[in-house]
Amino acid sequence: MRALLYDGQLRLANDHPQPRLIPGEAVIRVRLAGICNTDVEITRGYMGFQGVLGHEFVGIVEEAGDSRWVGQRVVGEINCYCGTCPTCRAGDVSHCPQRTTLGIGGRDGAMADYCLLPEVNLHAVPEQVPDEEAVFAEPLAAALEILEQVHIKPTQRVAVLGDGKLGLLVAQVMRLTGCDLVVVGRHADKLAILEHQGIATTMESGASELRSDVVIDCTGQPDGFATGRAMVRPRGTYVLKSTFHGVNQVNLTSLVVDEVSLVGSRCGPFEPALRLLALRLIDVTSLVAGIYPLDQAVTAFAHARTRGALKVLIRP
Amino acid sequence: MRALLYDGQLRLANDHPQPRLIPGEAVIRVRLAGICNTDVEITRGYMGFQGVLGHEFVGIVEEAGDSRWVGQRVVGEINCYCGTCPTCRAGDVSHCPQRTTLGIGGRDGAMADYCLLPEVNLHAVPEQVPDEEAVFAEPLAAALEILEQVHIKPTQRVAVLGDGKLGLLVAQVMRLTGCDLVVVGRHADKLAILEHQGIATTMESGASELRSDVVIDCTGQPDGFATGRAMVRPRGTYVLKSTFHGVNQVNLTSLVVDEVSLVGSRCGPFEPALRLLALRLIDVTSLVAGIYPLDQAVTAFAHARTRGALKVLIRP
Repeated sequence: MRALLYDGQLRLANDHPQPRLIPGEAVIRVRLAGICNTDVEITRGYMGFQGVLGHEFVGIVEEAGDSRWVGQRVVGEINCYCGTCPTCRAGDVSHCPQRTTLGIGGRDGAMADYCLLPEVNLHAVPEQVPDEEAVFAEPLAAALEILEQVHIKPTQRVAVLGDGKLGLLVAQVMRLTGCDLVVVGRHADKLAILEHQGIATTMESGASELRSDVVIDCTGQPDGFATGRAMVRPRGTYVLKSTFHGVNQVNLTSLVVDEVSLVGSRCGPFEPALRLLALRLIDVTSLVAGIYPLDQAVTAFAHARTRGALKVLIRP
Repeated sequence: MRALLYDGQLRLANDHPQPRLIPGEAVIRVRLAGICNTDVEITRGYMGFQGVLGHEFVGIVEEAGDSRWVGQRVVGEINCYCGTCPTCRAGDVSHCPQRTTLGIGGRDGAMADYCLLPEVNLHAVPEQVPDEEAVFAEPLAAALEILEQVHIKPTQRVAVLGDGKLGLLVAQVMRLTGCDLVVVGRHADKLAILEHQGIATTMESGASELRSDVVIDCTGQPDGFATGRAMVRPRGTYVLKSTFHGVNQVNLTSLVVDEVSLVGSRCGPFEPALRLLALRLIDVTSLVAGIYPLDQAVTAFAHARTRGALKVLIRP
């Protein structure tokens, strides 16, 4: 089958072995896959991953041990866990130390004609959600993980830092809480997407005087922290939502003195993401920068790498 | 001026003294007032209140010490507090032991040509929110108080018990969290309003098998508790949102054994309510059962008292 491989360089393979059904898993024919900043970071060395890229997808189940899945249109959680270790038994399966992660760690991804995932990871897509929106279930779930971890109150001031793909999704999720929301970004055209939805925005240069109860860092950049840290009020919460290749310098004492909490936040719940998409409460269509056939996946990646690019999709 | 009085009986007075400006307060010309279940309960003896009824309103500031308020269209928080006692100094002003409450305790209400409220209680209404929606700011704020008190997670199952005016607002607020929501009611026509918004509903008879993380009692009835209590999972949360004249029998031991939390919830934050109305994320227009001129306020009350009636508004 065709597959977009990263093995030190990015290339389209036409003869990659098609995944074969194994017990408990399902073979999925991919209909659409999304390029995430994490994918771009992988091609810069993040995670040391080599293999088929892609963890955002929607597809049709082609083969599965449980025949009820066959023919269903699905999205899938990306962390594949053992289910028997203490972490899994405590319910924290996405933190299983033995996990593999679709297109990120130990498991080929979805930028291919077919991919393989455990049946327990699958979620049927509601009929009214088209492929072009369902493919956002994974990043939207990641945005919702913030609400799983932090109680955002309707009266609180919340600042979302970053106007990239994830920032725009996080901002839309925060909008639904009724909070006093501002999005701090660097690209007038992307902030305009949010302003169209009644969300207040500001260019980064003017952000230093804001003092928020909760700051959510979606910059995807190491230097986002210095900007964002200055925006949190004493006793406030700083949510780390960015993954990038590299390390930061952090004044830990200032966190103690100001009693600021840092909350790292990763993958999130799919069912509420699908519910919000079905309810049409999140606009993802305005986040699509382009759709490329799988044969042009390398070109699609070049597009996704350009500064300020929104979501680039690949259609096998 | 004209005013709807309750003094043991409900009657329209045509010669009630118009409120006079006092320091720190504002005289408001009422444009629209809403009838709440609490008003109906007052006419049954709740709170022992006598005076002008009405605590849900929108109006224009006619006189104020701070001239910037004059001419502004406003809604108002109903609890008027001392600002100096320990409760107030701790920020819990709506719980001030010396408080008066608009149309509910120690202070004439808004079902009149004019009413009086402290300037600090006022909130300017965004231009795009019409009077017929702004008048819902107070009950919508009360619905949002739940989100101030309880962290509703997108993955949780939440049951709203009751399909009255408040239940329909609470359900719409919960819908925005992405939670797995069901509304349990007794009136197919009112549940249909929610179903139209993609909210799952069920008639009360079928509700006993549901086990929810959070149950929100908006029944306005003493017997709501027995139904709702059976619907909470162990370690779940039961939010008490109803006020009524009377007492309940509660098995406190069962709450201990099941480790269920009870949370009493009252007035809430106005600014997020106005934000959600301005964003058009809450549909209040479908909740209006009728608008009556102030001269027909007694008839309006009779309408509001009828079983299953939604929001009845009075226009001075």
